[in-house]
Amino acid sequence: MKIVSLEAHDVRFPTSRELDGSDAMNPDPDYSAAYVVLRTDESRDGRPLEGHGFCFTIGRGNEVCVAAINAYAPLVEGAELDPGDLGGFSRRLLHDSQLRWLGPEKGAVHMAAAAIINAAFDLAGKAAGLPVWRLLAEMAPEQIVDLADWRYLTDALTPERALELLRDAAPGRAARTETLLARGYPAYTTTPGWLGYTDDKLVRLSREAVADGFTQIKLKVGADLDDDVRRLRLARDAVGPGVRIAVDANQRWDVAPAIEWMRALEPFAPYWIEEPTSPDDVLGHAAIRRGVAPVKVATGEHIANRVLVKQMLQAGAIDVLQIDACRVAGVTENVAILLLAAAYGVPVCPHAGGVGLCEAVQHLSMFDFVAVSGSTEDRVIEYVDHLHEHFEDPVRIVQGHYVAPGAPGMSTQMKATSLAAYAHPDGEIWRNH
Amino acid sequence: MKIVSLEAHDVRFPTSRELDGSDAMNPDPDYSAAYVVLRTDESRDGRPLEGHGFCFTIGRGNEVCVAAINAYAPLVEGAELDPGDLGGFSRRLLHDSQLRWLGPEKGAVHMAAAAIINAAFDLAGKAAGLPVWRLLAEMAPEQIVDLADWRYLTDALTPERALELLRDAAPGRAARTETLLARGYPAYTTTPGWLGYTDDKLVRLSREAVADGFTQIKLKVGADLDDDVRRLRLARDAVGPGVRIAVDANQRWDVAPAIEWMRALEPFAPYWIEEPTSPDDVLGHAAIRRGVAPVKVATGEHIANRVLVKQMLQAGAIDVLQIDACRVAGVTENVAILLLAAAYGVPVCPHAGGVGLCEAVQHLSMFDFVAVSGSTEDRVIEYVDHLHEHFEDPVRIVQGHYVAPGAPGMSTQMKATSLAAYAHPDGEIWRNH
Repeated sequence: MKIVSLEAHDVRFPTSRELDGSDAMNPDPDYSAAYVVLRTDESRDGRPLEGHGFCFTIGRGNEVCVAAINAYAPLVEGAELDPGDLGGFSRRLLHDSQLRWLGPEKGAVHMAAAAIINAAFDLAGKAAGLPVWRLLAEMAPEQIVDLADWRYLTDALTPERALELLRDAAPGRAARTETLLARGYPAYTTTPGWLGYTDDKLVRLSREAVADGFTQIKLKVGADLDDDVRRLRLARDAVGPGVRIAVDANQRWDVAPAIEWMRALEPFAPYWIEEPTSPDDVLGHAAIRRGVAPVKVATGEHIANRVLVKQMLQAGAIDVLQIDACRVAGVTENVAILLLAAAYGVPVCPHAGGVGLCEAVQHLSMFDFVAVSGSTEDRVIEYVDHLHEHFEDPVRIVQGHYVAPGAPGMSTQMKATSLAAYAHPDGEIWRNH
Repeated sequence: MKIVSLEAHDVRFPTSRELDGSDAMNPDPDYSAAYVVLRTDESRDGRPLEGHGFCFTIGRGNEVCVAAINAYAPLVEGAELDPGDLGGFSRRLLHDSQLRWLGPEKGAVHMAAAAIINAAFDLAGKAAGLPVWRLLAEMAPEQIVDLADWRYLTDALTPERALELLRDAAPGRAARTETLLARGYPAYTTTPGWLGYTDDKLVRLSREAVADGFTQIKLKVGADLDDDVRRLRLARDAVGPGVRIAVDANQRWDVAPAIEWMRALEPFAPYWIEEPTSPDDVLGHAAIRRGVAPVKVATGEHIANRVLVKQMLQAGAIDVLQIDACRVAGVTENVAILLLAAAYGVPVCPHAGGVGLCEAVQHLSMFDFVAVSGSTEDRVIEYVDHLHEHFEDPVRIVQGHYVAPGAPGMSTQMKATSLAAYAHPDGEIWRNH
């Protein structure tokens, strides 16, 4: 099929008005998407065949990602998309030498590539009539290995070794697919823990989370230690000893303060500390991990690319890897990252929330369970109950689990009415603001 | 003084037509600048007081950096610029939580911040009537320490320790300023070594470099091993055993191939291997360094920020640090990086070339010599003889040394005629292309 046009949209939701999403580094996010539509010359079931994808930002600067998406347009418009060569499609974007200079493989151009690559997978899923998790999970091991860009990885994992991993997991695929369809994939919720919420709201939402079947919640920390001690105590009292409470500092600390702060929170048994410091600081995370054990160290939503993930694993810097669907180069780079994590035996617990991140990332974890790691042990996908109503195929959570999506594509298509109303700056929501 | 407006320009030079700047990863660069003019409500010597700065790209995507510069405009336009608080100015840009999300501290938004921060230093230098190297070198140690953003650095270097370093260097400042003014700062040249050049051109330019007083040249490698062996042999024969030949792979290799390739080049005594692999790969550089000794490992032009520099030093991953004036957040982040390098005793040999990078970065090395490391031993600034004619105050090279600039500012102001002619896509050079 031929991609006849690439369309980029600047879509923003005024979430800062309610302090949803507030944390120690991001006090007033307006959840936003630099959104891509790939149009083709084909149709399915009488409707034009399109791919939808996006990258996530928190407001200002979303237009920079839109500009970066448009910078890739000459490489995409008019191109044939071979659903059997999505690795090649991805590498053609990422290896453009002039655009690569703006990273390499990081920042706005990389996020833009993520939006386009995810849109291509949404398109391929719709063309095949399969949800993307299943499209991936039904590929031959050789096809999966070919999705990844192996440059810079071979000192940690070769394509040959990755192929062995995938072949070892192949016999169990059918049974795990049944399990996934029957039980869903475990989730945890960040809904109770935003920094801008009152104590009463924190306690009420924590109790609701447990009643809803979640076995893990998450609290934002890092702005004020006394507040954190009080809030963590309230949350622990609310959920009891059997529920895991993760805490998330959103990159607030240097190495020594991270260790000190976490020692002060230890009496309330936090499960993991997320983003204690800069996402670029492999050696810093390793030092913090040594300093805060048995509390686990988690990071990944802001890790720029597979080269930094590789080093986090090589250095033993993290206990939990938190992939993001749209910060690295979409499905293809995340496939490489899932293979790395499986090779090192580190569980992947994706970052989600934002706008559409839950919808997108569930496909990656479900693929991982069926075809890569083969396990959901100590693995949970983040869930936040924001903005799902804007999507055609929103996530469904039942008893603390993501229900495996059945609709073709990557669940990344926003409703046309939302695209129009929240368009920045000319949609009605912003015009009247 | 008040910044009344921020103007962003997309300026591109069609260098790909001559294969100037061609290397193993960047076959056809069009050297470009996302260029900033800060206009103020003041004047000096009857001329309006302005600051000029830029970041460097190689063509496509330059418009993305321009968009990122414009994204900062609301933080800059109408702001008071206190030349005594350029650290504060810099941190206000870099800590904007919504724009930070697009990095953090990397990619297009970080390069845009570099352009603006360098323009602010150009402005401050012009306001004070001093070249920026001297503006910096005459600051009190406390003022210099306050330029840096210390977040994420304190496990390697605290502001208190940095202050000690600067105080220790203070008594020698006057004598070193005299030395610098008399002798200039050592340079090396990359002019002979572009991958697209013929063997004859390589030999001729190598001989010319030695005749011009350079004691180090650099060759691009990494596309084809047989070619590299032949070219390095030709260059070694042309310059003789006493001249250093650095080689530069521009991120072409994984760890094992880097070591193998360099073993094959060892007979020709390369001085350093530059960018053997991904600039994000701290542990990979450390492994390569162990594998290629006594050849030195150099990197830095694509290192995104001070956190990655910190780790390169902590891990003993590099022998030579190659700062870039415009990829990290301009003068302020480079001050932090120079302090880190001095603390770890690693020499800084800046990346230059491109468009205007020589002009900008000389100020940083000269400041380093006078006020930070206090040495030019094993330190050279890259020199490439491209595109200097477009600048108001171009670099001057005498006997293989950069002459210390005397004009106020950062030497980053492009001629108005060049800004107009090379404007993309509407300047005459591109309109007629």
